Amino acid sequence: MSLTVLAVGAHPDDLEILCAGTLAKYADRGDRVFMAVSTNGEVGSPTLPKEEIARIRKKESETSAAIIGAQLLWLGYPDEFLYENEQTRLRYIDVVSETRPDVIITHDPECDYHPDHITTGQLLWNTRVMTTVPNIKTGHPPCEKIPAVYFMDTVAGINFRPEEYVDISSTIEKKRRMLAAHASQGEWLKNQYGTSYIEFMETCSGFRGLQAGVRFAECFRRSPTFPANIEKLLP
Amino acid sequence: MSLTVLAVGAHPDDLEILCAGTLAKYADRGDRVFMAVSTNGEVGSPTLPKEEIARIRKKESETSAAIIGAQLLWLGYPDEFLYENEQTRLRYIDVVSETRPDVIITHDPECDYHPDHITTGQLLWNTRVMTTVPNIKTGHPPCEKIPAVYFMDTVAGINFRPEEYVDISSTIEKKRRMLAAHASQGEWLKNQYGTSYIEFMETCSGFRGLQAGVRFAECFRRSPTFPANIEKLLP
Amino acid sequence: MSLTVLAVGAHPDDLEILCAGTLAKYADRGDRVFMAVSTNGEVGSPTLPKEEIARIRKKESETSAAIIGAQLLWLGYPDEFLYENEQTRLRYIDVVSETRPDVIITHDPECDYHPDHITTGQLLWNTRVMTTVPNIKTGHPPCEKIPAVYFMDTVAGINFRPEEYVDISSTIEKKRRMLAAHASQGEWLKNQYGTSYIEFMETCSGFRGLQAGVRFAECFRRSPTFPANIEKLLP
Amino acid sequence: MSLTVLAVGAHPDDLEILCAGTLAKYADRGDRVFMAVSTNGEVGSPTLPKEEIARIRKKESETSAAIIGAQLLWLGYPDEFLYENEQTRLRYIDVVSETRPDVIITHDPECDYHPDHITTGQLLWNTRVMTTVPNIKTGHPPCEKIPAVYFMDTVAGINFRPEEYVDISSTIEKKRRMLAAHASQGEWLKNQYGTSYIEFMETCSGFRGLQAGVRFAECFRRSPTFPANIEKLLP
Amino acid sequence: MSLTVLAVGAHPDDLEILCAGTLAKYADRGDRVFMAVSTNGEVGSPTLPKEEIARIRKKESETSAAIIGAQLLWLGYPDEFLYENEQTRLRYIDVVSETRPDVIITHDPECDYHPDHITTGQLLWNTRVMTTVPNIKTGHPPCEKIPAVYFMDTVAGINFRPEEYVDISSTIEKKRRMLAAHASQGEWLKNQYGTSYIEFMETCSGFRGLQAGVRFAECFRRSPTFPANIEKLLP
Amino acid sequence: MSLTVLAVGAHPDDLEILCAGTLAKYADRGDRVFMAVSTNGEVGSPTLPKEEIARIRKKESETSAAIIGAQLLWLGYPDEFLYENEQTRLRYIDVVSETRPDVIITHDPECDYHPDHITTGQLLWNTRVMTTVPNIKTGHPPCEKIPAVYFMDTVAGINFRPEEYVDISSTIEKKRRMLAAHASQGEWLKNQYGTSYIEFMETCSGFRGLQAGVRFAECFRRSPTFPANIEKLLP
Repeated sequence: MSLTVLAVGAHPDDLEILCAGTLAKYADRGDRVFMAVSTNGEVGSPTLPKEEIARIRKKESETSAAIIGAQLLWLGYPDEFLYENEQTRLRYIDVVSETRPDVIITHDPECDYHPDHITTGQLLWNTRVMTTVPNIKTGHPPCEKIPAVYFMDTVAGINFRPEEYVDISSTIEKKRRMLAAHASQGEWLKNQYGTSYIEFMETCSGFRGLQAGVRFAECFRRSPTFPANIEKLLP
Repeated sequence: MSLTVLAVGAHPDDLEILCAGTLAKYADRGDRVFMAVSTNGEVGSPTLPKEEIARIRKKESETSAAIIGAQLLWLGYPDEFLYENEQTRLRYIDVVSETRPDVIITHDPECDYHPDHITTGQLLWNTRVMTTVPNIKTGHPPCEKIPAVYFMDTVAGINFRPEEYVDISSTIEKKRRMLAAHASQGEWLKNQYGTSYIEFMETCSGFRGLQAGVRFAECFRRSPTFPANIEKLLP
Repeated sequence: MSLTVLAVGAHPDDLEILCAGTLAKYADRGDRVFMAVSTNGEVGSPTLPKEEIARIRKKESETSAAIIGAQLLWLGYPDEFLYENEQTRLRYIDVVSETRPDVIITHDPECDYHPDHITTGQLLWNTRVMTTVPNIKTGHPPCEKIPAVYFMDTVAGINFRPEEYVDISSTIEKKRRMLAAHASQGEWLKNQYGTSYIEFMETCSGFRGLQAGVRFAECFRRSPTFPANIEKLLP
Repeated sequence: MSLTVLAVGAHPDDLEILCAGTLAKYADRGDRVFMAVSTNGEVGSPTLPKEEIARIRKKESETSAAIIGAQLLWLGYPDEFLYENEQTRLRYIDVVSETRPDVIITHDPECDYHPDHITTGQLLWNTRVMTTVPNIKTGHPPCEKIPAVYFMDTVAGINFRPEEYVDISSTIEKKRRMLAAHASQGEWLKNQYGTSYIEFMETCSGFRGLQAGVRFAECFRRSPTFPANIEKLLP
Repeated sequence: MSLTVLAVGAHPDDLEILCAGTLAKYADRGDRVFMAVSTNGEVGSPTLPKEEIARIRKKESETSAAIIGAQLLWLGYPDEFLYENEQTRLRYIDVVSETRPDVIITHDPECDYHPDHITTGQLLWNTRVMTTVPNIKTGHPPCEKIPAVYFMDTVAGINFRPEEYVDISSTIEKKRRMLAAHASQGEWLKNQYGTSYIEFMETCSGFRGLQAGVRFAECFRRSPTFPANIEKLLP
Repeated sequence: MSLTVLAVGAHPDDLEILCAGTLAKYADRGDRVFMAVSTNGEVGSPTLPKEEIARIRKKESETSAAIIGAQLLWLGYPDEFLYENEQTRLRYIDVVSETRPDVIITHDPECDYHPDHITTGQLLWNTRVMTTVPNIKTGHPPCEKIPAVYFMDTVAGINFRPEEYVDISSTIEKKRRMLAAHASQGEWLKNQYGTSYIEFMETCSGFRGLQAGVRFAECFRRSPTFPANIEKLLP
């Protein structure tokens, strides 16, 4: 029985860095994958104006999603200024009602440090149970079932406490290509952090792999919510 | 010397599930009890429109409060959409100034997972010290004394770390009746979670009792604020 | 492909209270189950002398194991006085080398509070990696593969932080019978804690079930060791 | 090579209580120090109207800053009602871009309990990385370098977990004078908390000193952000 | 109804520094207090041989206990070399069986850092439930009731997380005299830590008082054991 | 003013994997470095008998220490069976009294998972304050000053919470050579964990570097002891 998976990242390359290997694994075995991006990523350039870099990054995200046959959802919020309010809460409920996932993967609101990441993770965590409630009206009927929510690793693993690992040795090549699709980010991140973002991702995935005794891995934490997920839904 | 107790729950049946046994115990020994409810609980029905279910639930809360002679405060915020902002902060300060409690019992903003619970708990925690400040003007004069704040258990005990227990074996029957007053919730919760909400509460109260070596108990955590409460104010 | 499971409890009824539903589920699907008991349980009687109660409890453990076709290992250490030393460390390595488990289930040395529980859990945690080392000589050749280690719930859930749940609704009846096999403990525990030990177990299993949205459950935590287990080995 | 230090407190006397000894030490060795105050401190009087007490407290802050030759930044937000939103986020980025600090010292958003403290700390933590981003436009060009962020102790040390200590024995006298500049707070705090605020500060600094084996100390925690600060920037 | 209290410190002056104010308060209201000391404190001198300093310190402890009418139990283990083993476990069970306390106060095995403190705390924590077990034979019949266990503050509050405070403003003078009875420690500690041990204690008690809004306080944490204490047994 | 550094690892290659870059940096700037190894490492071979592999590994450790001019201390305890008892406690006090370090670097007894690591870390943590005590007699006079203690990373970073980072980009080449000196471990670890131990180390050092914005790093945590170290003693 195939699953529906909704992954939600704050910026256009977050999912590629933090969980694309797992998404590729879901896709490889025939699960349906949605990749949602909260913001336009418009601060992701030291030279281009906001509209232009946003347009470029959306295209890059489409290219990346296409590599694993995932469907992209572009939520279009302003980069670095995503807030949790009634409008966004309703919108994220609607995203879930539209995609009807068995599993949601998103940022960890307790371990992460970037405000857009935390807000994205919180929006999904906050609305997890609300997605089945008839009296909250969005553009789609309420879900039949409360989805499981997994929080993905943080950038550079800062502050993260892994509970489960997914072996992504078989999909690391796809992960590399998905991240490489975000070509606009290459030089600027290299200048900012002194390392290629592909190498950055490889070091992180290699380190998580080494923790779990495999070549490459990604790691996750279950969201501490009632009711706890009891099914084993990571691939 | 009798105490004044203000209990604040996010939804119309939260106090009944999480601390009604303790409230009944306060009432039994002659303390004055206020039960405040943040939201209208209007998502609490799969079939009725919001206004109707809200009206029904307010009545149910009045019935429940009456069982222990408590006074109900119905704050009327929209269910699932309570936010911490200047308006709500002032309102909760006013609720405290009006009731002038020695003890506040509310949701745990650090351990709970539901956004309305967290916001309710945070509002009381945030305003604890503000309630004595003359330059914050509300409808009532500032309190003379900073109240103690206790955080109650979470639904199903998810993520909660108990510090103190209250033996509610003598008031479990009243707790049952108070919860049963929320008759509108019976069938819907049974469908959603596969168990009667009365049994749900009994399992939780029985489990907490078992941890503390009594038949039924409720558990609490002190809010980590300056100045720490030094008095032992739980019954 | 069937698994081999080694469960190790400190006292004769610990496994029955804390993980028998999971063990029964393993057994039901054809996995091989070993139940090891660290101590003789000889303080488990207010009236009988040590040798007599120890003999009775061993029989009860055999009866319990037989219900799910598990093999009993009786390690025979003195109740309340189990220590971690070279002799016990070698013995527990030998128990693992003899049974060659894929999965070990034992007490949680970080969350539990009883010294025999902590020591038992620590012995298995400490020796996990040692079980594959040729230069540590025991009565059996070293294992080929480092086993996964899961820590089970604590008595009454005190201090435990669940990471994974197993739905034991289908095996709760067997769990009840396994625990009931420890008939010598019935009256004494009732006097000590004011509740039947069968009801005690049912309240705990019911509470854990309620957290995970099922009728009855048991919960576990992964041991934080290198290399982390990556396989999903709970039933 | 001299450093630039930006300290940001929520209320006019917070920096004086929590980190003035460290700031004086920076100043003594020739570093440049900015002291920013988020709010007007206008609830800091039981008798004076808001505008009057705010005016007085700004003067007191100027007097205090002058003692160590620091430059005061008065942000002017309403006391007890500081919120994290797009406007404040941009403003705090601008404060950083204007002062271009190597080190930021502020309240701890994870350990503190006062909402204005938490919001102030969060604003600096949230915007730490944003301060170098060209596409976020404020009144000043983006910083060249991501500043290090240290979180200071909480009032009365409630809930704080010190990681690093600074010996302030050589500057305690300046700290005393800086705090004494806030003369308007003397009587009111004495009535509220039963102790002179100077003695209060001395007890806290003495206690932190005693933990670190010196006469007086202040303590700090590093903000858990990517990239972690690697330089040792406390004096 | 009066209580029996057993306080157990690792070294001859530990109880005086960490909980003597609370013990004096118990004594003042008529409760029976035992003060037990694990070790001879024979490393407590830079000049005297072990036997001599041990003899002196025992006398000092007797003087101190006499101030509040407490009975001293001198366990006589070697200073800095107390271990948890079968012999000590039985001995500490015997101490409890002999004194039959309602409340035990001791070091915190999870927060403290000194091995003798940790071992002392662990011995009491480990044996808490064993003290009622008939089949563990010591020099006294088993207790009827499992005592409550509270862990006291650490030296200098390092790493401690207070849960409850006791106002010792009324007994600080007695606490001072009790500590002063340990005159042999005055000069040596002053040389080692640069402060008089009386001032040291006053700063700690003053700091804990300040956290709780009183002049002087001591703080405690409940031991996380099953069954949890439900009674409020601190004075 | 140059420092004396004592690093203590449980097995012959632990220091090389976890802190050799930092030790090389100390050595490069003229500090004196001691490298102590608790056990013979005699389980470190799947084919050679204990005595032979122990002899080989001691030589390898000497070769490694020589690369940075460090002095090796070979403590000779049995691999996998190091225990904390009176004999070992005295021995580790003696090692400290002999080397008289300003800084001790060792395993983290709270975060690590291997029993020999935990015991080694605990022995140094436990004895930190004892090293200055005249009445504890070892082969050397007591230290004048309590040394600072830093805990190093765990193998594969499992469970570790870094507080401070050291940039080892300038010494990574020496670290590689030091680890490569342990040639006997190459093949066996590759078979056990599926990766070369040099690559293993590089991935870990690269990951820690990436967290701190440099090419390679090692990370540490301060031991939570009284008195806390206040000096900044990492290179």
